[in-house]
Amino acid sequence: MHSANTVQHRATVSRSRREQLNRHRSVILWFTGLSGSGKSTVAHAVEEELHQAGCRTFVFDGDNVRHGLCANLSFSEDDRHENIRRIGEMAKLFLEAGVIAMTAFISPFRTDRERVRALVSENDFIEIFCDSPLAVCEERMSRDCIKEPAQVKSKTTPASRPPMKPRSIPT
Amino acid sequence: MHSANTVQHRATVSRSRREQLNRHRSVILWFTGLSGSGKSTVAHAVEEELHQAGCRTFVFDGDNVRHGLCANLSFSEDDRHENIRRIGEMAKLFLEAGVIAMTAFISPFRTDRERVRALVSENDFIEIFCDSPLAVCEERMSRDCIKEPAQVKSKTTPASRPPMKPRSIPT
Repeated sequence: MHSANTVQHRATVSRSRREQLNRHRSVILWFTGLSGSGKSTVAHAVEEELHQAGCRTFVFDGDNVRHGLCANLSFSEDDRHENIRRIGEMAKLFLEAGVIAMTAFISPFRTDRERVRALVSENDFIEIFCDSPLAVCEERMSRDCIKEPAQVKSKTTPASRPPMKPRSIPT
Repeated sequence: MHSANTVQHRATVSRSRREQLNRHRSVILWFTGLSGSGKSTVAHAVEEELHQAGCRTFVFDGDNVRHGLCANLSFSEDDRHENIRRIGEMAKLFLEAGVIAMTAFISPFRTDRERVRALVSENDFIEIFCDSPLAVCEERMSRDCIKEPAQVKSKTTPASRPPMKPRSIPT
């Protein structure tokens, strides 16, 4: 803590004031689970609902973290720990900013998740394990792999982009 | 972008929708200047005004970054670059989240600041050089040192401060 004489340096806008402005509390929703278990899908669906209810939200996933803040990390064990540590510290700042921060990472090590939990108060960290059966995870993963080439094609040849398809899964 | 069939994995809540909800645009205000030039003081004063006007804001400074996200960085030249890189990437995510993100760091190297600027669109990054006279900076610093000698002296003694390289010399 600084002394009273340097108080003009300090933040006057607190988490509590931001939450009052937002009319909702902030929290970290930590989605965990295997690849293909639906972490990101569920997090984005929850975000859509919360946004429509007027809440301030953000979802962290591989797309916006692995190419940015954690772009200089490999997939070694040490770097995986550091990856989760940085995501945890960032989520903590979003919490302070009054945002409902959702993270969608495999985060397989309990120690990593407990370290993040310890950064904040007990009620500020909710862990959500996406407990999908392995067969479902594998099916969803392989489906994504099949779809990916089409994506690249549509980028390089815009004229040949196929017409929009409905969002529902074809039977 | 993924193809239409995998769109259910993707974010539906965009920066634009968040800005509409907030009724203001998001932006990065990058305060730079010598130790004691008033970066943090000014940033927090701006934040107070913006908050009272109903804006979503956050200020990053040494207090909330150096002990968290960047706690494993030293003050070596390499680590100073990495410090600014991480802050830039984090500010970019706050921008995406619809927040007016203010940063208050010496950030003496123009190349570091230009690298952050290049992460976002032209109008999303506003650099603010706190151009206080050296004597004023020193007076403010020594006032802080008297109040909290251990903390300030060990981290940012003027002798070890890197030379400031403003983006443009004021005429």
